[in-house]
Formats: sequence, C-alpha cells, structure tokens
Amino acid sequence: MSELRVVVAGPESKAEHTVTPGTKAWELFPDDPAVIAARVDGVLKDLSYELGQGETVEPVAIGSPDGRDILRHSTAHVMAQAVQELFPDARLGIGPPVTDGFYYDFDVEQPFTPEDLEKIESRMRKIVKANQRFSRRPIDDDEARTELAHEPYKLELIGLKSSTGSDGDGADLDQAAEGASVEVGAGGLTMYDNLGRSGDVAWTDLCRGPHLPTTKRIPAFKLMRSAAAYWRGNEKNKQLQRIYGTAWESKEALDAYLHRLEEAQRRDHRRLGTELDLFSFPDEIGSGLPVFHPKGGVIKREMEDYVRRRHIEEGFSYVGSPHITKSHLFETSGHLPYYADTMFPPMELENAEYYLKAMNCPMHNLIFRSRGRSYRELPLRFFEFGTVYRYEKSGVIHGLTRVRGLTQDDSHSYVTPEQAPDEIKHLLSFVLGLLRDFGLDDFYLELSTRDPDSDKFIGSDEEWENATAVLRQVATETGLELVPDPGGAAFYGPKISVQARDAIGRTWQMSTIQYDFNQPARFGLEYVAPDGSRQQPVMIHSAKFGSLERFFGVLVEHYAGAFPPWLAPVQVTAIPIAERHVDYLTAVATRLRAAGIRVEVDDSDDRMQKKIRNAQTQKVPFMLIAGDNDVEAGAVSFRYRSGDQDNGVAADDAIARIVDAVASRVQV
Amino acid sequence: MSELRVVVAGPESKAEHTVTPGTKAWELFPDDPAVIAARVDGVLKDLSYELGQGETVEPVAIGSPDGRDILRHSTAHVMAQAVQELFPDARLGIGPPVTDGFYYDFDVEQPFTPEDLEKIESRMRKIVKANQRFSRRPIDDDEARTELAHEPYKLELIGLKSSTGSDGDGADLDQAAEGASVEVGAGGLTMYDNLGRSGDVAWTDLCRGPHLPTTKRIPAFKLMRSAAAYWRGNEKNKQLQRIYGTAWESKEALDAYLHRLEEAQRRDHRRLGTELDLFSFPDEIGSGLPVFHPKGGVIKREMEDYVRRRHIEEGFSYVGSPHITKSHLFETSGHLPYYADTMFPPMELENAEYYLKAMNCPMHNLIFRSRGRSYRELPLRFFEFGTVYRYEKSGVIHGLTRVRGLTQDDSHSYVTPEQAPDEIKHLLSFVLGLLRDFGLDDFYLELSTRDPDSDKFIGSDEEWENATAVLRQVATETGLELVPDPGGAAFYGPKISVQARDAIGRTWQMSTIQYDFNQPARFGLEYVAPDGSRQQPVMIHSAKFGSLERFFGVLVEHYAGAFPPWLAPVQVTAIPIAERHVDYLTAVATRLRAAGIRVEVDDSDDRMQKKIRNAQTQKVPFMLIAGDNDVEAGAVSFRYRSGDQDNGVAADDAIARIVDAVASRVQV
Repeated sequence: MSELRVVVAGPESKAEHTVTPGTKAWELFPDDPAVIAARVDGVLKDLSYELGQGETVEPVAIGSPDGRDILRHSTAHVMAQAVQELFPDARLGIGPPVTDGFYYDFDVEQPFTPEDLEKIESRMRKIVKANQRFSRRPIDDDEARTELAHEPYKLELIGLKSSTGSDGDGADLDQAAEGASVEVGAGGLTMYDNLGRSGDVAWTDLCRGPHLPTTKRIPAFKLMRSAAAYWRGNEKNKQLQRIYGTAWESKEALDAYLHRLEEAQRRDHRRLGTELDLFSFPDEIGSGLPVFHPKGGVIKREMEDYVRRRHIEEGFSYVGSPHITKSHLFETSGHLPYYADTMFPPMELENAEYYLKAMNCPMHNLIFRSRGRSYRELPLRFFEFGTVYRYEKSGVIHGLTRVRGLTQDDSHSYVTPEQAPDEIKHLLSFVLGLLRDFGLDDFYLELSTRDPDSDKFIGSDEEWENATAVLRQVATETGLELVPDPGGAAFYGPKISVQARDAIGRTWQMSTIQYDFNQPARFGLEYVAPDGSRQQPVMIHSAKFGSLERFFGVLVEHYAGAFPPWLAPVQVTAIPIAERHVDYLTAVATRLRAAGIRVEVDDSDDRMQKKIRNAQTQKVPFMLIAGDNDVEAGAVSFRYRSGDQDNGVAADDAIARIVDAVASRVQV
Repeated sequence: MSELRVVVAGPESKAEHTVTPGTKAWELFPDDPAVIAARVDGVLKDLSYELGQGETVEPVAIGSPDGRDILRHSTAHVMAQAVQELFPDARLGIGPPVTDGFYYDFDVEQPFTPEDLEKIESRMRKIVKANQRFSRRPIDDDEARTELAHEPYKLELIGLKSSTGSDGDGADLDQAAEGASVEVGAGGLTMYDNLGRSGDVAWTDLCRGPHLPTTKRIPAFKLMRSAAAYWRGNEKNKQLQRIYGTAWESKEALDAYLHRLEEAQRRDHRRLGTELDLFSFPDEIGSGLPVFHPKGGVIKREMEDYVRRRHIEEGFSYVGSPHITKSHLFETSGHLPYYADTMFPPMELENAEYYLKAMNCPMHNLIFRSRGRSYRELPLRFFEFGTVYRYEKSGVIHGLTRVRGLTQDDSHSYVTPEQAPDEIKHLLSFVLGLLRDFGLDDFYLELSTRDPDSDKFIGSDEEWENATAVLRQVATETGLELVPDPGGAAFYGPKISVQARDAIGRTWQMSTIQYDFNQPARFGLEYVAPDGSRQQPVMIHSAKFGSLERFFGVLVEHYAGAFPPWLAPVQVTAIPIAERHVDYLTAVATRLRAAGIRVEVDDSDDRMQKKIRNAQTQKVPFMLIAGDNDVEAGAVSFRYRSGDQDNGVAADDAIARIVDAVASRVQV
C-alpha cells in the first residue's frame, strides 16, 4: 500500500487528504503552533501518532479543554521529573490533570516545604528550557514490572489495570481511580520517556498519554501548594504528599487565572462571614448548620421581608408547615425510595418513624387537599420559608453554599394544565426580576429533562414530552441562552433552572421552576371544573433564591461583602472629628433612625482615622463625618467606601440621599 | 368528762366554744344553709361528725372549692343509685369529683344512650326530692367484702386500699387512682348508706366521704355525656361506661357554667380553625404538628411582622439558628439530663447523636461566644423565631395550645448583674404592651421559685435568693397581682410569667421572663469589664407570645374568630347588589389594595343576601355594598359584623376609615 487516505476535520469543515504511509499526525498541521495533539477517530493521540487508513483526524489546540488537560498532565510529568531529580528517594503516586490544574502524589519522608516548591519550580523551568521530547513506548506487563521495580505504587497500578473502572466508591476514590487511569489507560501499557537533545532518557513514567510533543510547549505554569493525601483516596492507605500546580496556554491566561483565584479568595464568603461577623458554623452544633449573628440577621431579614412581600404581590399565599413528619407522607409523595440517602435518619416515636423534612411539597399538597377546591381558586399559589434538612456528605459541605439545613423560599402553584404555560412565564419573570433587584443581571437558563433510558423517572412519555415542550417554549421566549441538561430532571418532572453569573463571572445555579404531573396524582389532588367534573391540577414547584443560605453566600461573594446600602447590616457610621461633635452627630443619627436607616455613631476612644478604617473594614456604605464647620453649617461630610468624599452636605440633603439610596436598592 | 372545748374558725376569726359531748359539727353552724361540711383539724368531715376535745372546726360552704367537690361527689352517688335502680345489672366502678363536675363508671352490657341519660337524670331528681340522708358507717375489710360480693370492682379497690398512692404511672391512671382513693380513703374502710325518711337503706356505696347531709342539699345538677373508659385507666382492663355530670351551688351558677361551656365551644379554636380555613392537623404528618392554610398564614405573618418589628425597636438583634444540633450542646447547657423525656429521640449520624432542638438558648450562647465581648456591647439582646420540638404525650396535645412543634419568639438578653433589674423591667413593660396591642388587657403575674428541698435546681442559695429578689421587686413595681408559684422555676433560675384573662375570663399563661445565672457559667460566657477583667454575664430568657402557635390559638378563642381588622385574613368583602356594580367595586377594591388592605370582591353567582351571610360566617370585619345610588354618588355602604349598616359613605372616606381602623389596631 503506497498511500493512505485520511480525513482532516476542522470545527466547520472536513477535507480528505492523501498521505504516504508513516505520516505522523503533526504533519497535517505544520503551520499551527497552538496544535499540541490530535483526536483520531474520537481518541486523543500524540502528535507523533502514525496515521492509519481512513482515519479522521482533528487538531487539538492547547487552549481547548482537552488541550489544557494534556498540557497540565505533561506539566505534572515535568514536575515529577524535577522532584525525583531533587529528591531521589521520592516514589511516584499518580499525577492527573484536575480542574484548572494538576497534581502529582509522592511518597517522601518529609512533607514538602515552600522552599522545596520553589526549588522544584526552578528545576522544572530548566526541564522546560531543555526541550525534552515526550516519547511513547508500548510495554508488556512483565517488562513494566521489571522496569518499575523501584516504584511500588506504579506496580500496584499495573495490577489494577483491568479493574480501574469499577473500584471507585466515593468522591475521593473516584478521583484517584481517574488519576490511575491516566497512568495505565484501558488497553496495553505504555511508558513515556522524556528524551534529551541527544536522545538520552532523562526520565520515564508509566502513562497512557497523550502528551505535548516537547516540554518547551509548556507556555506558563506555577506550583500552588502541597498537602497530604492518602494513596488512592483511602484513609487506610499510606499518606503521600501531593503537590498542586497549574498550567495555561499563555502567560496571560495564567495571570488571569491567578487573579480570579485571588478575587475568589478575597470574596470567599466563609472568610468574610467571620470578618464581618455575619454567621458562623459552630462545631458544637454540627457540620453544615450555620448560625446567623446579629449583622447576618439583618441581611437575612431584608431578604426574607423582600421575598415574602414580593410573593404576596405576585399572588402567593404565605402558609406554614412543620419540619418533621411521619414517614408515610414521603412514601405517598414518592420521595422516600429516591431520597432516603440524602435525608437525616428517622426518629422512632410511638410506633411511627418521623423524618426531618427534606422538601416542603408534600405538606403543601395536604393544605391543598384540606378542603374541596374549585377551578375558580386556580392558580392557587402557596409559599413558605421551608427549612429543610438534607444529609450532604462531609466532604462536599461548603460554607453557606452547600449546607445540611437550608431554608427554601419554596412555592407551589396549582394550576389547570391550560394555565401551566402562563404560570411558568409568570414565575420566570418573577424570578428574573428578583435576581436583578439583588444585583445579579447576567443569566442563562438550563432545561433539565429526563433520561429516557433510566427507570428513575415516573410518568408517561406523553406527560414528559408535553411538560418539556411547555418549559422549552417559555424558556425560549425569554430570549436568554438555553442550555440543555439531559437526564438532570427530578424524578417527577422536567425543570428550568436559572444560572446567574456573579461579579467575577462564576455561574451559580439559583432558582428552579419544576413542572410536576406526578405528585398531584399520587396525592389524589383534584378540583371541580366548570362542568362539575373532578380534574387533576398540575403543580409547579419553584424556589426563587433557591435557598436563603446559599443565596446569602452567593451575595457575599458577588459583592465581596460590600453590600448595597439596602442590604448592608450597618448603613451609616457617623464619625465625629472630635468628641465635641458627638452630640451633633447623635442628633443626625436619631433622624436617620426615624427614617428607618441603620446607623451607628462611633463614640469610642479611637482616633478619627482609626474610626474611618474600622468602618471601611466593615464595608459600611456611608460614613458621615462632622467637625466644627459642619456643626456650624448644619452639614455633614460624606465619605464612601471608594474613599471619595463629599464635604459640607446639608444634613437634610444627606438624610434624603441615604434614604433614597436604600429605597432604590442601588449599589454605591 | 362533761364538756368539750372546741375552736370555731372563720375566715378571719377564731372563737372557743364549750359544747356537750356528743355534739355534732352541724350544731355549731345552725343558721347557715350554705354550710354542708366541716374541716376538723384540717380534715374534711360530714356535718354529722361528733366533735372531740380541743378540735378546731371550720365550716365548709357549698360554693367553696372543697364544698363543690363534696357536692359533686354526693351527686355522683345519687347518679349511681339512679343507674342501679334503672339498670340493676350495672356494676359500680369509681365516681370522683373532677374539675367543674363529676363522673361515675359503670360496667354495663350496652353503652348508655341519650335517652338513658334523660331517664337517669329524671330518677336523680326523685332521689334529690326524697331527701335521703348520707349516713356514714365504718366497716372492716372482711365485712366489706361480704357486703360488696356482687360488686367486683369495689372488691378490687378494697385490695388496693393500702397501695393507691403508689401505682399511678400515667395521667389517666393517676386520675383513676385518685378516684379510687375517694372510694376507699387512707384509713379504715367506710360505707355510706342513703337512708330514706323511714330509715330504710335506699342505696349503699363504699366511700371515704364526706358527703352532703342529705340529697336535698343538691341545688342544681345536670348530666353532660357518657363515654367509654378503661377500668383504672389501663387499656388492658375492661372498658366501662362513664357518665359525666356537673353540679353547682345554685341554679344561677349552673346556668353560668353551661353558658361558659357554650361560649368555650363557640370559641373553640380547633372548630373555628376549620370553619375559617385557618389551619389543620393532618394525620399524615403526626399529632400536634399544625399546618397553616393561606388565611391562617395571613394572621401568622401579621404576628411575625409585629413581633419582629417590636423586638428591633426594643433593641434586639434578629439572629438565626438551626433546628437540630449534636447532643453535646444540650449536655453543656444541662438540658439533656432534665429534658430528655420531653425531647424527640435522637438521630444517629456519623457517630454523633443529633437532636431536634427543644430550646434555643444554647445556640444563642454560641453566638455570644463566637467572638470576644466588651461591657460596651451589653445589654446584648438576641431574638429569633425559634421553632422547637417537644414530645408532649398524645393525651395532652390540644389544638394549637398544646403542640409538639412550637415557634417561640425567643429572646436572650445578656447583661451585667447590675443591669439585670432594669432589663427585666424593660422586658416586662415590652411584654405587657405587646399583649395589650393584641387586645389582652387583664393580667396577673406569677413568680415561680425553686423548691429548696428538690435537687432539680442548680446554683447556690445566694444566687437563687438574689435572682428571686430582683424578679419580685420588678413584678411588684408593675402594681399587678403577683401570685407565688413555689417549686415552679426552671432548673436554672426563677421566672415571672404573665397570665392573661381572655374575653370570657379564662386565664392563659403567655409570656415568661427567666433569670439565668447557670447557663452563662456552663458555657463559660464572659465579657471584658471596664477594668479589663473578665466577668460573667447574666442571661435573661424571655418569650413574649410564649409560642406563636399557642398565642394564635388563644387569640382565636379570645376573639371567637372575629379578629380585629389588622389581624383579619380578609379585611373587606365588597358585595355588588347586582352584576352591573362589580366593575365599580373592583375599582374601589384596587384602591384599597394599593393602600395595603386585604380585600375580596364577591363576584360569584350567589345572591346578595347569600354573599352577606358568607362574609358574616367568615367574620370579615367590613362589608362594602354598592348599588346604583352608590355608583352614582361615588359612595359605598358599610356593613359591620354586628349587622349595623352605614349607607352612602363616600368611597374616599370609606377607604380612609378602613385604613385607619387597621393602622390603629382597634376592634370593630
């Protein structure tokens, strides 16, 4: 055979090429320095892959998701080489790419110090500069065992090769198993040698690849930190030392990432929660169970007041239900077989099992069913602040955004099937307006549908198709981006969720709107139609904040703790230039307080500059400063969080300006 | 011995009398027909009791608490005689006096019918009229067994005589044991014979007495109902038939009681809760766990808004805490050993026991302790709507007033010991103002102190004495009646509770204010004093409503469902005289709604009179009716719940009048 025909596929086109046997993948893309690997018939390969007859080849750019994984995994190899050069006794664990970076685990006597990391990073730069070539070499199991005799963990992986897909039984272990599969792959074993300029083998690792062509193709990397980690994520195994790093397609991309990271740390709601005295998670109570301190309570109350008022304006009735119920209720609703794992264990009482509720809908159904209903009452809309408890695994609990006790601003609209589209439209517009009032205005929608091959979903094909069509239509009409989420529906019906991007571009799943034809049937809900017949309503579940706790956490991060005045726990701090100005400011504060403003007069013994710093640290929106001139003129000086100042504002104007800023919910 | 000296004690005086031996007690009170028994050296005796040397004798009037018990127990005997005359096979159980009446249990083949009760009542009237004498006769156990051979339950009581004090292990059984002690007493057995005019024995019962002198001294009685009851309150025993009756010192007192009963039934919040669609207790959820329907939710929201706003005005910070916690927290607080029986059973999770919280204070202590505190922050006042769960026995659960899930408007003030009296004064005045705003204005206070002989109470003598003195002083200063409640304190300190009398004179325990020097010590709470030393604060627990649920129930009964406008779920119903007036009233309703008024336009197909009746049944405070004249004049006609009407009121005036009635919280 003297020639091969291959197909080169671009993002929008395909072209057939004829090449000679022995042609490598890179020869198809000679002019594009961004291409660092190839996808051949859907499988990622090194650029040195030798093409075969009829194969379809796509270039993989370094900045694409797959390209970044390959870059990061190659950087992990470089790091492992550097570590073994500097610490010859270090034995290798695994080194997979992870979100935004990579790690490699090492069995070493001593944990790595920050100085060690600097040395390793410096050695890595040398290896990158040396432009070593990543060279692939198939090997059989016995040869690999001989060659890796000094690497006990790699030997263990060889034994695991055929079973890596099935031994993950927890998040950590899953990750470890995935890491292992990066090493050994699914088919025969391969080794990757790092070859120096003269072809000498500088370093070798068991790896399924693919890799960058050479180390010089690593444009930008940084080591982040080291931490202990159990071998294969199992705490019965030996503790290894893991070094985390990151690598990017350009210096600019690395810098942007480090900036995002710094921003995220600056905005971390857990840290700000403590610094601003908003909330805490006492060990004595238990993981994922926050308490809200007085200042956090102010924000919580503003949120509650707002969302309750808006629900009432939108035609919802405020109802109430207990936090516990006999198990039978969740059997009727169908939740128990599906959700038992994520519920707290039952309490045994008087021959019944009581559960903490993990959702409010079954209780609202009982209110619906408490008397006969007529079509004249529909849409009938119930809402409550329903605090539910869900058993989240310790590992995934995170501040306020992933908790075990959460307060849903939960509503259920009972409608005729004909009313459903309008009600969903109503809910979606309500939700988007609410999020905008809280300063979020960059959204997209997600449409979660069932997986037709799963038996998790109950209800007929027709019901699912009809409900999904209704949601899709309403979602499309908003003009927002609509992202499909196949298989992501609840067991009882499809849903729309609203994803909001925060101030630094991260997306958070906020509100959900779920279409449910199942629970009305399970609870035997019915209304009398105009013709006197009994009909089954559709129910539409909706949480606007999602949960108060999570939304609170998102807002802290979105605003980096600098809340707009209407939400700020302290809206105004009044700061006298000298003690003789305290009375004057106290009088201004009294007038502000009468206008509903949360104001504090700092009459402590601190110096004025310290008081200003304190108010800035507490991110108070307005400081009102007064000295002799102000007192004489009946004025105050504004100082904003930005540091801007506005002197000699008449007290009346100052009060009006503050009241207006609060009422209009602007950020200042 | 030819003469006896006895002391006759009146309510305010004592006098020594000399009487001949053989003198009966009644001879000391020959002219007072209200005296029906005597208390001799503190023990109740028949008037036929033969006086002994040196005894102190007090008359017992029929209208006194003891007198009523004797009257009611004697009426129970008359009822039992009537039953056995009409149903010779009926075997006797026990027949004690109870609150406001008496009962007697019978072993009969068939439950009593209403007609049976009428017959029994009629036969009782004959026995009363026959003026049978209650005649006491000591008897030894063997004789009693012979005489009562045909009464198996009485035979069982003879065997119990010496043990009745100790076998009560539940509320029902306690009551049954108390009933039994009425029969057999503590000393030797006695029989009471009912003697006819000629001295013939009309009927006999084993009884310790005392009794009225004769049946004719029963001024007024009535049989109420019959119900099944297990012998001695134990469901393993045979079911007997219990007849309840009541008896009073006068026809007027009986009528007043029956009226009160009717009023209480008319006001029963459980019935009104259903009729007015306010709340329900779904079986599916469990006993004592209410759900609030939309109309109940309106009242709940008004209560919550009011109480939260008032707390903030009074200097409290709104905080939040979860409904569950690890057990350790309640061990620290000291609640667990004392309250475990009244808590829901724990949930086992991740090697810890989680409890539903039964009180909020320990969590507030964690908020206090979450950072260092200075004397400048005190009084530091936290409050939250804390929903707690308590295991009340099924038998005592009652509507909203005794539930298993209750929402306390719970506050904790942390103060220096010096600040405690002022803070308690502050709380007491806050509480009384709050109750007055809800229409309760007839109060007395109860001061609950420790029982020095019980080991339930923790803390030193000095701490208790000091705290009690503070509470007593503040309570006295209010000028309200102060009732002592020795032994009624919580284990950690004394308390004041506010008892309110409702519209029909019943008293309800509402708010409590508790002084606590124990928990601050157990939690190691401290603040930095002006001198830089670390000091322990005092905490003052206070719930104003007590619980939202209970206060809700009390308000329903107090107002008999006819809430003042500010609380009424629907404040205005607009009723068109004909369909052509609907648009006009809809426009008026829109203006009312814009003014924050809850208004419904009844545009149903019902006739006007039916619409008025519906609004009256729903106890809507204002009906606005409009016909042609009103439309032409831009007016409406008011109709009040009383049926009063006020025609041709200009719409502007009508709206202002309604807005004003709501704002000023008046009843109409």
